[in-house]
Amino acid sequence: MLLGAIEAGGTKFVCATGAENGQVSDRISILTTTPAETMTAVDDYFTTHPVDAIGIGSFGPIGVNPDDPKYGYITTTPKPGWGDFDFLGHLKSRFNIPLYWTTDVNEAAYGESMIGIAKDVPNSIYMTIGTGVGAGVISQNHIFNGRTHTELGHMRLNRLPGDDFKSNCSYHDICLEGLAAGPAVGKRTGKAGKDIPVDDPVWPIIADYIAQACVNLTVAFAPDKIILNGGVMNQRQLFPMIREKFAAYLNGYEEVPPLDDYIVPAGLGNNSGIAGGLLLAQAALKNA
Amino acid sequence: MLLGAIEAGGTKFVCATGAENGQVSDRISILTTTPAETMTAVDDYFTTHPVDAIGIGSFGPIGVNPDDPKYGYITTTPKPGWGDFDFLGHLKSRFNIPLYWTTDVNEAAYGESMIGIAKDVPNSIYMTIGTGVGAGVISQNHIFNGRTHTELGHMRLNRLPGDDFKSNCSYHDICLEGLAAGPAVGKRTGKAGKDIPVDDPVWPIIADYIAQACVNLTVAFAPDKIILNGGVMNQRQLFPMIREKFAAYLNGYEEVPPLDDYIVPAGLGNNSGIAGGLLLAQAALKNA
Ligand SMILES: Nc1ncnc2c1ncn2[C@@H]1O[C@H](COP(=O)(O)OP(=O)(O)O)[C@@H](O)[C@H]1O
Ligand SMILES: Nc1ncnc2c1ncn2[C@@H]1O[C@H](COP(=O)(O)OP(=O)(O)O)[C@@H](O)[C@H]1O
Ligand SMILES: [Zn+2]
Ligand SMILES: [Zn+2]
Repeated sequence: MLLGAIEAGGTKFVCATGAENGQVSDRISILTTTPAETMTAVDDYFTTHPVDAIGIGSFGPIGVNPDDPKYGYITTTPKPGWGDFDFLGHLKSRFNIPLYWTTDVNEAAYGESMIGIAKDVPNSIYMTIGTGVGAGVISQNHIFNGRTHTELGHMRLNRLPGDDFKSNCSYHDICLEGLAAGPAVGKRTGKAGKDIPVDDPVWPIIADYIAQACVNLTVAFAPDKIILNGGVMNQRQLFPMIREKFAAYLNGYEEVPPLDDYIVPAGLGNNSGIAGGLLLAQAALKNA
Repeated sequence: MLLGAIEAGGTKFVCATGAENGQVSDRISILTTTPAETMTAVDDYFTTHPVDAIGIGSFGPIGVNPDDPKYGYITTTPKPGWGDFDFLGHLKSRFNIPLYWTTDVNEAAYGESMIGIAKDVPNSIYMTIGTGVGAGVISQNHIFNGRTHTELGHMRLNRLPGDDFKSNCSYHDICLEGLAAGPAVGKRTGKAGKDIPVDDPVWPIIADYIAQACVNLTVAFAPDKIILNGGVMNQRQLFPMIREKFAAYLNGYEEVPPLDDYIVPAGLGNNSGIAGGLLLAQAALKNA
């Protein structure tokens, strides 16, 4: 049995094949241009690399609710050409195999939950802080969705006294993504993320907002683990800063796991998504 | 078949009997004093009113995770005598019938979800804004719990510019409960809640914090409905104020149901909890 995975990002798509244990055997990276061009490359890949099922995690917003007429679509993205694109329908018409469809962050969350840093616990949250902020929630080893998928990057937090940075989110004067995602860090400092020194005064601010978000994730979902990934989290000094602020904000109100085990980097690095896709493909095959 | 329900609050316990459809046939109210005294009254009630199963919703924090050694306990409550009390164990030793154990707000959320205002939708959140703030989340018609139950009253929000009210939560300088629960409203105005005029300047502040909380519930859980109940929500003018602020904060970022159907009062009034308890008793019986 060979499984397939797609990690569909706004910048690039990764297509891969691999095994039931999430081990990747082959992968390619495709630039995200137009649906016509990019999807042709996806089709070609899985035509030359035939698989038994594919797990797909896509940038969004997407339709994840089977009762929704836009199920399987990328819906209202500002990315030219991709709005209202029937991604799942496109694949279904070409590959007559089980397909699992979810968000990019849910896919990565599932990978971390099944074989990554959260493999020993049933409830975890994977949050990426990169160009945007998104999160996937795993509850009792299953992906959590409501009426639609979560949009946790846009939770409202307390604007720090003295922080007059204009939110980089075009919708919200205050939200995690607008105040603390990669582009916000870039604008705050005038530097590319990787060029900002580890002791730059911007980091305590970013750590504070991420810590506030972790408090809200804790009181909302009571996870066993919060996994932080994405470009900004390459700044490893953020982890102890976030844990310290988190402890101060939660202030002992409820018991949480030891913080070094609770707020953690991804176990699979950049492979969370693809590994999750393979495992979701397997789940789709099992349920078919 | 006769079902039982307990709504165990910090001020009073309600015990009731009723039918599978959540209809109450008998009820009593017991003052919450010591466990010995209060539980004797509970035991007496269900001895004189024998039932086939009991659904229990308790004030907390409580142990809701069957893997937790404190499962079935009221854990760290400051309420004298009730900390570390094995509530479920007490009932189990006296009544050899199926019991369903959850939080008071989960019980009420379940009632509203099954036969109340949210009966036609699978995902809803019941939030009470009274002496404290608590919420129960229903996902796909089931009670959502993580490692433990939610503590959504303590989510962190943006402190309004100019609002220098000292948080009434002893743990958090900023949280929904500390800034906007009944006692906070009391301290802000120096008046008993029911004596505050509908056009008092406190209400736009309270509505703002509740609206922020509704935004965070939306991006976290994507529910079909958010139900607001509890003493403070007797101020019915809050509903339109909350909806308006919510719309401004969400700012069209994602689609939500029409707000008059989305942010709503409870359908069962003060019966949400007891109705939920009867329905949970039925669920326990079915699964026994
Ligand atoms: N070492 C770094 N330190 C801080 N920020 C970084 C670092 N590396 C990348 N970033 C920022 O992370 C963002 C990219 O995030 P990434 O997770 O790699 O991609 P995406 O979110 O687009 O999938 C950019 O805004 C970039 O500036
Ligand atoms: N009509 C009202 N307007 C505003 N606040 C009220 C009103 N009625 C009760 N409250 C407040 O609600 C709180 C009690 O909430 P309630 O839901 O009745 O009980 P509890 O949360 O203790 O179960 C008190 O702080 C009270 O001041
Ligand atoms: Zn935003
Ligand atoms: Zn608090």
